[in-house]
Amino acid sequence: MADKYRLGNFFEDFSIGQKLVHPVPRTLTTGDAALYISLTSDCAPLHSSDEFARQLGYPRAPLNDLLVFHTVFGKSVPDISFNAVANLGYADVRFLTPVYPGDTLRAESEVIGLKENSSGRNGNVYVKTRGINQRDETVLSFNRWVMVHKNDVNSVCGDSRVPDLPERVSPETLSADASLNPAGFDARATGSDCWFDDYEIGERIIHNRGTTLEETEHMSATRLYQNTARVHFDQHMVAHLSHARRLIYGGHIISVARALSFSGLENGLRLLAWNSGAHANPSHAGDTIYAFTDVLDRAPLDNHPGLGALRLRLIAVKNQNPRHDPLEPRTWNSDKNRMSYHPNVVLDLDYWLSMPMRPGK
Amino acid sequence: MADKYRLGNFFEDFSIGQKLVHPVPRTLTTGDAALYISLTSDCAPLHSSDEFARQLGYPRAPLNDLLVFHTVFGKSVPDISFNAVANLGYADVRFLTPVYPGDTLRAESEVIGLKENSSGRNGNVYVKTRGINQRDETVLSFNRWVMVHKNDVNSVCGDSRVPDLPERVSPETLSADASLNPAGFDARATGSDCWFDDYEIGERIIHNRGTTLEETEHMSATRLYQNTARVHFDQHMVAHLSHARRLIYGGHIISVARALSFSGLENGLRLLAWNSGAHANPSHAGDTIYAFTDVLDRAPLDNHPGLGALRLRLIAVKNQNPRHDPLEPRTWNSDKNRMSYHPNVVLDLDYWLSMPMRPGK
Amino acid sequence: MADKYRLGNFFEDFSIGQKLVHPVPRTLTTGDAALYISLTSDCAPLHSSDEFARQLGYPRAPLNDLLVFHTVFGKSVPDISFNAVANLGYADVRFLTPVYPGDTLRAESEVIGLKENSSGRNGNVYVKTRGINQRDETVLSFNRWVMVHKNDVNSVCGDSRVPDLPERVSPETLSADASLNPAGFDARATGSDCWFDDYEIGERIIHNRGTTLEETEHMSATRLYQNTARVHFDQHMVAHLSHARRLIYGGHIISVARALSFSGLENGLRLLAWNSGAHANPSHAGDTIYAFTDVLDRAPLDNHPGLGALRLRLIAVKNQNPRHDPLEPRTWNSDKNRMSYHPNVVLDLDYWLSMPMRPGK
Repeated sequence: MADKYRLGNFFEDFSIGQKLVHPVPRTLTTGDAALYISLTSDCAPLHSSDEFARQLGYPRAPLNDLLVFHTVFGKSVPDISFNAVANLGYADVRFLTPVYPGDTLRAESEVIGLKENSSGRNGNVYVKTRGINQRDETVLSFNRWVMVHKNDVNSVCGDSRVPDLPERVSPETLSADASLNPAGFDARATGSDCWFDDYEIGERIIHNRGTTLEETEHMSATRLYQNTARVHFDQHMVAHLSHARRLIYGGHIISVARALSFSGLENGLRLLAWNSGAHANPSHAGDTIYAFTDVLDRAPLDNHPGLGALRLRLIAVKNQNPRHDPLEPRTWNSDKNRMSYHPNVVLDLDYWLSMPMRPGK
Repeated sequence: MADKYRLGNFFEDFSIGQKLVHPVPRTLTTGDAALYISLTSDCAPLHSSDEFARQLGYPRAPLNDLLVFHTVFGKSVPDISFNAVANLGYADVRFLTPVYPGDTLRAESEVIGLKENSSGRNGNVYVKTRGINQRDETVLSFNRWVMVHKNDVNSVCGDSRVPDLPERVSPETLSADASLNPAGFDARATGSDCWFDDYEIGERIIHNRGTTLEETEHMSATRLYQNTARVHFDQHMVAHLSHARRLIYGGHIISVARALSFSGLENGLRLLAWNSGAHANPSHAGDTIYAFTDVLDRAPLDNHPGLGALRLRLIAVKNQNPRHDPLEPRTWNSDKNRMSYHPNVVLDLDYWLSMPMRPGK
Repeated sequence: MADKYRLGNFFEDFSIGQKLVHPVPRTLTTGDAALYISLTSDCAPLHSSDEFARQLGYPRAPLNDLLVFHTVFGKSVPDISFNAVANLGYADVRFLTPVYPGDTLRAESEVIGLKENSSGRNGNVYVKTRGINQRDETVLSFNRWVMVHKNDVNSVCGDSRVPDLPERVSPETLSADASLNPAGFDARATGSDCWFDDYEIGERIIHNRGTTLEETEHMSATRLYQNTARVHFDQHMVAHLSHARRLIYGGHIISVARALSFSGLENGLRLLAWNSGAHANPSHAGDTIYAFTDVLDRAPLDNHPGLGALRLRLIAVKNQNPRHDPLEPRTWNSDKNRMSYHPNVVLDLDYWLSMPMRPGK
């Protein structure tokens, strides 16, 4: 009689080249879309209005790219990060085929790297994960690496390889949705007259709102994504840990910060790719999140006249309003002799966002 | 390089006759309908059951009138009331074409009045706002006035006009949905044998439940309506204000009180119009809301045999059960030499509700 | 002018054989399905994925059986248990026709027993309740008994009969959905290689997660089911009672525990029946819920080759992790001279779950 208590995978359970088909396919619906708005304050018209989407050439409003990301990510948790110490980073994250209400997503991962840590108590696991729809199209692919506990500290890890992941996604490799017609863009739906052309490299946009996080909210969001990582849900367990608080799923912070960034980036359309991402510090219920965006780069999308891609660095800050109390997210720490994050920074996300060029220009 | 920090409009930014097309059209769905029930405890069968609605001549269950109101109102916030001191009042609010899942709403406003306040630091802005569906039908129109901060206290306001708004909507101008057939009304769906004829002018109905408000709940509701007013969300900001608490969106109180009022008004159908409304005192998380209704007037709907309109005054009270501890909502305050609200009253809404007459009478 | 304050039924208002048509039919949608996942952490692929359901012979993903249960139960509250002291038990609960998004449910009950309690202040009401869809098919039937307050303690109860309810549902009377084809079961969707054959009578499965309950969450769930029982919502009222806390709807605990039990029972399909159920102790916001399952019995489903039914006892425990701190749910209490529940046990549910047999065996 086998013990059916599920431990999840530990560091020694992974091997390079291993393929994992993650359980629980998920049909996303207009119910999920409504909840996503209710949980994050998303105001992007592309995801809010079927009419706006149709004018751009979509059959209806596609689901928010981050709802798709969290759904696929959540599926990978029981296999990849149920025993994670920390979610360390992302590379070459690509948002591909749009997902619509009624589509069913499944997720698969391949282990692309492993590295035991010097403590011998855990190691880093590198995976490439794909989200796939019911027509076997890849809707999303991403690389992430996670520090995972060993179950047996004496286990020996045979494989050791740190994969060669790109520091950024090259804009030449980005492409917008084939059907997308920027000429159909109705700026009355966004209320903004700032276009691709109006964002300058080096510009900082401080977003004009903040939002306070609550326990029910982050747990409802994380449950919606069927992400079952225990640190987000189990106060009885975490009461004995250093923070003694439930940790908010880092993806919820991404969604909250991205929604705050609508104000100042109203004409943005789809997330095209993430270059990198770091959950710089943990967040807990009661924290108030603010956000600002630095414009890092911009590139036209060659196969899509009238459309460009902005490379943006989205910084989320807790309990400090960067409008009144500016900060640099990451500075040289001479004590530690390395770059380190400001203690109030909770997210550093480097991504490409598509945006129409100024019409008639 | 323009600063993309969005300030919203200040008092001096408005002019009489100015037209504003509010951003972010919104397709409402069964997801929003489910959330509305989950957030407010709405039990009205017209909005809960497609079968009940079809028997009355609707193609399916229309969305709750207040969900429509909040959606349209929310769109107007960034342009009209982002810098509001207070939401002062409503007049001639009309619920027109029913809205169904799949409909896309947009909102437009016209500035119909302005009046600088004697302090010189702010002024009242009067707007007429319309919600419009994808077929360009007006689904809702309302007048509201808001006290809005000046950005520059030295700015001079050229215009000054207080519009002539009706104190009440005349019942002769009310009309029910053309397709509505009161003969199809199935009272087993409401459980009530109280009809239009059974409500007497002067009657007070104390509703039999109370509900305690929570932070996540009011923020989720307000986000669902894409209402981004900061006082509802940003604890870090409001910690320095007098209440030191996030203010609950007054519309959430309307929805909660209206849902409580189902018990005692079960056979009500649609909101036809609001005559006036006042958010008498603020509400915060932790408050328990009770409600009672005074019957002010009643009128048959001339073009709709079998259907009448009740004029009702819905009073919401916090932290005092009016069943056990009765109160008058508004009394003469001799210290202040004016009428003033009981400190526990949080809503005073005067509206017309359609209701079938007793069948076979 | 009748007082329209709704008291609900008291013990003396019931009579044996009385039939009640409960108000407020409800169309369930994909919005409710999304909310159910968001509120409970349900991960069952049958309810999560249209593709998985279609492979099994369903037209699309049926709604979670417990969402159906709570909806039907909620409709019965205003008539049956608005004035309940306690929800005492369930018997012969049967999940029949699957319910799909778009179906409209109504509920009816018959009073099948009454028994005044020796205190003379209340009595037990036994009802058989049915949930019925828009095609007049019974989707669910259950017996429950509730202790209900008298309004007038001097009222005399004429009827007195305790109905003869089965201690368990005989497995010969269970049947799976006619269209269900177990050969279409895709175990990649569940991630489990444990089948009907792999569960042994006497086996205990400790589920590997815990979840902390919050006020907004349980109230949102209970509102979604249009269950208006005041003890779940009204902090102002309950502040004067012994717990001084809002009581969490026992059905929410069933949903939370059932969702936790996915881990270890991944290949389960539908709830077929409950044999019995007890809300052993109350739960409140802040409690962390864990769960374990004892395998009580197993039986093949005669008319469904390849499919069996497991009889399971689902125990939910608050604030004690049964993995690290084991407990027996119910033991002999020599002080009280009867069996009594461990104070941390909040649910004891005895049910039948369908599960495919190991393929090719």
